[in-house]
Amino acid sequence: MKRKADVEGRRRVLCDAAIQILADEGAKGLTHRKVEQRAGLPDGTTSSYFRTRSALLRATAERVAELDAIDFEEVVQRCAQAETKTTDTTLSVLAEMVMRSAAGPALDRSRARYELALHAHRDEVLHSALQDVTTGFVALSERAVTQLQPGPVDRALVEKQARAITTFINGVSFRQVFGHPGVESAEELTQLLHALVAGVAASHHVHNGQL
Amino acid sequence: MKRKADVEGRRRVLCDAAIQILADEGAKGLTHRKVEQRAGLPDGTTSSYFRTRSALLRATAERVAELDAIDFEEVVQRCAQAETKTTDTTLSVLAEMVMRSAAGPALDRSRARYELALHAHRDEVLHSALQDVTTGFVALSERAVTQLQPGPVDRALVEKQARAITTFINGVSFRQVFGHPGVESAEELTQLLHALVAGVAASHHVHNGQL
Repeated sequence: MKRKADVEGRRRVLCDAAIQILADEGAKGLTHRKVEQRAGLPDGTTSSYFRTRSALLRATAERVAELDAIDFEEVVQRCAQAETKTTDTTLSVLAEMVMRSAAGPALDRSRARYELALHAHRDEVLHSALQDVTTGFVALSERAVTQLQPGPVDRALVEKQARAITTFINGVSFRQVFGHPGVESAEELTQLLHALVAGVAASHHVHNGQL
Repeated sequence: MKRKADVEGRRRVLCDAAIQILADEGAKGLTHRKVEQRAGLPDGTTSSYFRTRSALLRATAERVAELDAIDFEEVVQRCAQAETKTTDTTLSVLAEMVMRSAAGPALDRSRARYELALHAHRDEVLHSALQDVTTGFVALSERAVTQLQPGPVDRALVEKQARAITTFINGVSFRQVFGHPGVESAEELTQLLHALVAGVAASHHVHNGQL
C-alpha cells in the first residue's frame, strides 16, 4: 500500500506537470501520457492516480487553488507585517501580487487557470473546484476593502467593492495571459483599484440616500 | 472558378460553425471535419477553404472581429441617435452591449474569443488577428471617454481611461463566460465605468500637478 504522504506528493508532481502542459499547449495538448512524461514518471502513472480526463482536470484545478492560496496567504502576512498601516497597504500588496503573475511560473498558472475556467462550463465538478480559487480571491479582496472603510463596516458595500476589484483584476490577469497588459505597474493598478473602491462607495451611498 | 461572393459566404458559414464548436467544446473539439458537419456542408469543404488548423483559427478570429465590429457600430449609431446627449450616453450604451453578451449567440462568441485568445500566445498571426478585436474595442472606449472630458481633449488621459475600462470589461466578459457574473446589471456596470473614468482622471491630474 502506498503511504499517504507519497501519494499526495506524487499527485502534486503530476498536477504541476499538467499546469505546465495547459500553459504551453492548452487543454488540447493535455493527455495522461504527456503528464507522466513531463513529470519524468513511468508510463501509466497518471492513470493510476487519475482514471479519467475529468479527474485529472479537477485535481489540477485544486492544485491551482492550493498554489493561489499560498500567494494569498503571503499577501495577508506581508500586510500584517507592514510597518506603516496606511490605508492602501492591502490594495498595493494585492496589486504587486497581480503584477508578479505577468511572468514566470505564476503566468503559467494563470494560463492554466483560464484554460480550466473555459472548460468549466462543460464540467460541473471542475466548475466547483475552480470556485475555490474565486472564493479565496474574493475573501482576500474583502479583507483589503474592509481595511479602507471608515467607521463601522457596511457588509453590502464591502461585497460590492470586493466584486468590482476582483472583476477588474480578472481583466488585468486575462490581458497578461493574452499578452496585452491592461496596466503597466503595480502603482498604476493600486490607483485604479482605489478609484474603483471609492467609486463603488460613492454610488452605493447615493443609492442609499446617504449623500 | 468560384465567384467571390460565394467564396466569402461559404467562408463565413464555416467560421460561424467554428465559433459554435469553440463555444461548445473548446479548442480541443475543433476539427475540420466537425466544422463542415456543423455547417451541413460536404466532407472536405473546410479543408478546401482552410488548409491548416492555423488558417481555420485565424479566419475564425477575423470573423469574431467582424461580428464585434457590427456590435460596436450599433453602439456608435445608438449614441448618435440618442435624443438626450447626457454625459453618460456612450458608457451606458456600451454597458448594455456588454451585458447583452452574457447570453445567446454573443455569449458563444465571447467563449470562442477567449478560446482563441488563450491559443494566441502560441500563434503570432492569430494573435494579430485578435488584436483587431482589441483595437476596435479600444477605439469605441476612447470615443466613450472623450465624450466625458470637459474642455480640450487630453489624449494621454483618454488613452489611460480607455485602457482601464477595456480592462474592466475584459474581466466582466470573462466572468460571464465562466458563469460568475461580476456585475448584475447594465446600470451597475455604467456606474462602475464612471467610477473608473473619474478615478483615472483624478490620479492623472494629481500626477501632472493639476490638483
